Amino acid sequence: MLLGGDREAWRGASLLSISQLDREGVELVMRVADNARTESSLLGGKVLCSLFYEPSTRTACSFLAAMLRLGGGTMSLHESTSSAVKGESFEDTIRTVSCYSDVVVLRHPTPGAPRRASEITKTPIINAGDGTGEHPTQALLDVYTLIREIGGIDGKTIALVGDLKHGRTAHSLAKILRLYDVALLFVSPPGLEMPGTQEVVSLEEAVRVADAIYVTRIQRERFEDPGQYDSLKGSYKVDAALMATAKPKCAVLHPLPRVDEISTDFDDDPRAAYFRQMENGMYVRMALLTLILSPPSK
Amino acid sequence: MLLGGDREAWRGASLLSISQLDREGVELVMRVADNARTESSLLGGKVLCSLFYEPSTRTACSFLAAMLRLGGGTMSLHESTSSAVKGESFEDTIRTVSCYSDVVVLRHPTPGAPRRASEITKTPIINAGDGTGEHPTQALLDVYTLIREIGGIDGKTIALVGDLKHGRTAHSLAKILRLYDVALLFVSPPGLEMPGTQEVVSLEEAVRVADAIYVTRIQRERFEDPGQYDSLKGSYKVDAALMATAKPKCAVLHPLPRVDEISTDFDDDPRAAYFRQMENGMYVRMALLTLILSPPSK
Amino acid sequence: MLLGGDREAWRGASLLSISQLDREGVELVMRVADNARTESSLLGGKVLCSLFYEPSTRTACSFLAAMLRLGGGTMSLHESTSSAVKGESFEDTIRTVSCYSDVVVLRHPTPGAPRRASEITKTPIINAGDGTGEHPTQALLDVYTLIREIGGIDGKTIALVGDLKHGRTAHSLAKILRLYDVALLFVSPPGLEMPGTQEVVSLEEAVRVADAIYVTRIQRERFEDPGQYDSLKGSYKVDAALMATAKPKCAVLHPLPRVDEISTDFDDDPRAAYFRQMENGMYVRMALLTLILSPPSK
Repeated sequence: MLLGGDREAWRGASLLSISQLDREGVELVMRVADNARTESSLLGGKVLCSLFYEPSTRTACSFLAAMLRLGGGTMSLHESTSSAVKGESFEDTIRTVSCYSDVVVLRHPTPGAPRRASEITKTPIINAGDGTGEHPTQALLDVYTLIREIGGIDGKTIALVGDLKHGRTAHSLAKILRLYDVALLFVSPPGLEMPGTQEVVSLEEAVRVADAIYVTRIQRERFEDPGQYDSLKGSYKVDAALMATAKPKCAVLHPLPRVDEISTDFDDDPRAAYFRQMENGMYVRMALLTLILSPPSK
Repeated sequence: MLLGGDREAWRGASLLSISQLDREGVELVMRVADNARTESSLLGGKVLCSLFYEPSTRTACSFLAAMLRLGGGTMSLHESTSSAVKGESFEDTIRTVSCYSDVVVLRHPTPGAPRRASEITKTPIINAGDGTGEHPTQALLDVYTLIREIGGIDGKTIALVGDLKHGRTAHSLAKILRLYDVALLFVSPPGLEMPGTQEVVSLEEAVRVADAIYVTRIQRERFEDPGQYDSLKGSYKVDAALMATAKPKCAVLHPLPRVDEISTDFDDDPRAAYFRQMENGMYVRMALLTLILSPPSK
Repeated sequence: MLLGGDREAWRGASLLSISQLDREGVELVMRVADNARTESSLLGGKVLCSLFYEPSTRTACSFLAAMLRLGGGTMSLHESTSSAVKGESFEDTIRTVSCYSDVVVLRHPTPGAPRRASEITKTPIINAGDGTGEHPTQALLDVYTLIREIGGIDGKTIALVGDLKHGRTAHSLAKILRLYDVALLFVSPPGLEMPGTQEVVSLEEAVRVADAIYVTRIQRERFEDPGQYDSLKGSYKVDAALMATAKPKCAVLHPLPRVDEISTDFDDDPRAAYFRQMENGMYVRMALLTLILSPPSK
């Protein structure tokens, strides 16, 4: 279902892919997230169930905190603690948790699992990451952070850095940024390029011209040759020295957790946006829960 | 303590056994459960602790969701995650959780453990299953589902199917149904008959005449001879073909999870009541929490 | 930061050490705890995160229950269930949980970890035990219990019994009691004396003269010679027979869990204060959350 600028379309909808949103939809989320920073309770008596088939403390916590701040209640079923998640059929587990909840936040290693869940139940499903598939709420919080940090997207130059072949975060972000008039730069090791593009620039060049730099992890397990990984990771490290060559307001984002792609020596720089980005995740998720769960205003 | 039609008796009471209820008590729960389907918050600032010495995701979740919908708070201590549950004496654990909670929902493998708990503390205890003992809230949600699905209990024919010797669910349900003017049919393999009765009918005959069929699991671990189990389970399977011989409004219930006693090819039949039954569990538990915890109305 | 009798100083403050409080600060907590026994909701939409790097069901539960009773929401990250707690740097974990919460309740095996956390974030940190360091909320609930049980602290004689060398509970309590005009008696095995004091009395003598007895565990793992432990523990057991020689209103406290320092044959004696002490923990923690989180009254 298309999720655009009309709030009625959002009510009771599942959020499965960033492709459901047009630019008006993205901007509606941004406006509601701004309100969420000072919002009071709305969702008293509503119940969110987080159903995580693989761990993700940051994503899980920010959804739980978002629901609690809106006055709602939360239940968690995680792979490590729930026998149901381990033993039962996926279909029957979805039927169970959805009959007790007003919204199910689902993380699953299999691409498409959230869509399958949304076909089993009428309860809204929010995709909180489906393997190499999508992570739409991450993309929305990334855009929200970019807009807050650099004052908008149109006319900006944004560099995506890291493993752009496998990183679903970078894929979803690139998809949503294409709704804007933006110049994208791709910085990635040979063999890890963004699918569908051959243009790659060096990290040094990207840092010099970008209005924002979005850094992602290069995951060791993607490499057959560990030596290759070790030689690469050093060349993709953002630190205070490198950032001395960047624009004075160039924002640095990272979905976290980081390994060592960003040096801690940069953490206190005002351009280090990644901790604010993490907090923004809570406001964007409050916005999504508000849009999906709040009753029609009179 | 007897839990009848007078709400005052319920306030602050423990629910340990279905034998505490008379027919007026059962009907009070049904009425309050109907209200719970549209109820607003009542129990703000009250705390429910779920204390599970063995896993039961469905029962735990439905109690948590029930409390959250009523505006209350929840804490969970489960065997897998809590050192207290593992190491401390049962008595001291009950004293601990009950001093922090307004109600304790207790599942324990030992029959009588909830009663023992209720003797240690003044905090109400709800029995959420005590081994081969009882599971009174399951029996109440079963009756609630039967009433909603087939329009009442009096004058109806209800078949109980499965291992009726060991299944506490079937025992509690039979006990509560005897408060009504009902014909009960028992369908069980040789050696697994309902205690105190020798009348057994075939599944085919039961399906033909029943107004509702209550199917339970035949548990493999009860059989010394695995071959015997394998030969039996096929003969106790409810599927679309068999249900073609049943009454057009015959409801099929199951406490879930199912193994293969009910074929998924029957799931979309309007007579398949087991998923609605699961949701009803939340409303019945909301009713019980309301009766036990809500302050006297002025 | 000093936490005294002025409520403004408490708002948004971290509670790291009992040394932050003067006597006016202690008495403010006691007054707010008294109010908490009948208090209604205050903290709707606020979020507490309990972050426990080692298990402590009692402390964790009483904080969760305290927050829920005040109408707030709770999230728990415990070592056994959270990958973040296991894998990420302490600094980044603190940044994560604190950006989603209004207060972080932290237990950590390393002394000073709560102070380190409070330097990383502006979110208030409450020390819920840092190894051999402090456990300030336990000391406050101990004092609160003493005041309720024996009518005040000034002019009283209070005996501390057990391993006074290693027990942080006894250390913190002694520190806070020195704010009062109190006589302290120390009962401990040779080698396990309270640091900075050589005066030790026998358990029999202490019991005869004390207005209150605070018993702690003697931990087996502190002894190199298990035989020495076995010979000691019997001589430090409070039971009904011994308490027959005590004052008729002498209160017996214990931070729990107990092993066998207090015989269960004393549990029903009105002087057995340890279960009331446990419940008081919830009210004291409600008081602390109220002081730290509630908005300025108009």
